[in-house]
Amino acid sequence: MKTLIVHAHPEPRSLNGSLKDLAVSTLEGAGHEVRVSDLYAMNWKAVVDAEDYGPHASRPLRVARDSGRAFDAGTLTPDVRAEQEKLLWADTVILQFPLWWYSMPAILKGWVDRVFTYHFAYGVGEHSDTHYGDRFGEGTLAGRRALLSVTAGGPESHYAARGINGPIDDLLFPIQHGILYYPGLEVLPPFVVYGTDRVTDEAYPDIAKAWQQRLLTLESTEPIAFRRQNAGDYEIPSLQLKEGLEPAGRTGFGLHVRG
Amino acid sequence: MKTLIVHAHPEPRSLNGSLKDLAVSTLEGAGHEVRVSDLYAMNWKAVVDAEDYGPHASRPLRVARDSGRAFDAGTLTPDVRAEQEKLLWADTVILQFPLWWYSMPAILKGWVDRVFTYHFAYGVGEHSDTHYGDRFGEGTLAGRRALLSVTAGGPESHYAARGINGPIDDLLFPIQHGILYYPGLEVLPPFVVYGTDRVTDEAYPDIAKAWQQRLLTLESTEPIAFRRQNAGDYEIPSLQLKEGLEPAGRTGFGLHVRG
Repeated sequence: MKTLIVHAHPEPRSLNGSLKDLAVSTLEGAGHEVRVSDLYAMNWKAVVDAEDYGPHASRPLRVARDSGRAFDAGTLTPDVRAEQEKLLWADTVILQFPLWWYSMPAILKGWVDRVFTYHFAYGVGEHSDTHYGDRFGEGTLAGRRALLSVTAGGPESHYAARGINGPIDDLLFPIQHGILYYPGLEVLPPFVVYGTDRVTDEAYPDIAKAWQQRLLTLESTEPIAFRRQNAGDYEIPSLQLKEGLEPAGRTGFGLHVRG
Repeated sequence: MKTLIVHAHPEPRSLNGSLKDLAVSTLEGAGHEVRVSDLYAMNWKAVVDAEDYGPHASRPLRVARDSGRAFDAGTLTPDVRAEQEKLLWADTVILQFPLWWYSMPAILKGWVDRVFTYHFAYGVGEHSDTHYGDRFGEGTLAGRRALLSVTAGGPESHYAARGINGPIDDLLFPIQHGILYYPGLEVLPPFVVYGTDRVTDEAYPDIAKAWQQRLLTLESTEPIAFRRQNAGDYEIPSLQLKEGLEPAGRTGFGLHVRG
């Protein structure tokens, strides 16, 4: 495997930092190639602005169109081009981050906002009566896999089916489906460590062991069975799921998972 | 009313910029006080790091604990203290932003990550057998109201109950419930403009009229009926919704809305 780890925590000696380091050593120890984008160490620019598009930044700025023009011309900033190249190099992408306010830290959202440009991650492929762009299962990153490795402060029960935060699968759906599956990545079930406000040194070995087991079985892990957009399950162009495809009673984000 | 508008778009002459300007003129025209945090214009620092906590940044950095110590001591950075003061001044908070990758732009997520510190927005109140902190309906910002004003590139059908993106209410739940309701804000139904990739000059007057109507009825609009954490609906400390409280068949995020 060729794995890109995108890491988003300000403290190297944090649980997230340890999980990132363990992923590097475990994967390299198993003979895989690993590259790391350590966003804090890189002082990653988190904010989309006109500087990202150089001569292709129009006035007024139009983020989608201008980013696509700069992508087409090869004039995106070097930091963004380097991340796009890493994504194309990798066959496996791991995002390592703490769940802050039920989503990713701003620095990681800014990696998505800036790297996932028009014509690279969206605005790809033909639009016709049967095909609404190459997305949700097709696209630039098709054939690759992704995995979230997430730490959550609260206990697991708060993220359960009836937990007050909402189910973890639903909280991660906008990332797993909306960000990763959209440009074609197949998404493996997430690795989530709960209760990290209270993780003790004694608890770490079990966490590390579970993480290593996930890392060493990435190639045999079944991805989440998200529905492909252009394979017949959706009306086009309304992109509503056709009636009767889902198990009785299923609603919401779960509609977009098969079976 | 005293309204704080937090605005997150890089282009003043964008639809988001126009909606922000219209909110200011409409509310001021109706005799209300308005303050604006225009995050791009302020060159808002989006990324949490040790600099945020000054002398209270420990080594290794511990974001929650250190932010709470700096909050308690009044030594958070001036930009963060100013935003906290604005939130305490306001009785109504509007977040104006484009939906980028199914969530907020990084600059706005960074406003949340930095301003919503421990002891200000979380880690507030007693923890006991019947009360798991002041949150989800209680907290520092209780008694105030919030509203999302969001633009979405895709058409409304893609965000409908069976739409491929997932229902808009579910996409916004981590923000409306997880970020706004958590520290006590009551959340009004969002104002969403769809299909903004194709908004024409001809379409704008209808959008503006609808937005003005929402703005001028903020005080009489019923908030989303999120369940209060400590009012008896949840087991404590597991914070699972007690059985039988929801309408038959309701699951997921919808469990946490009454009725």
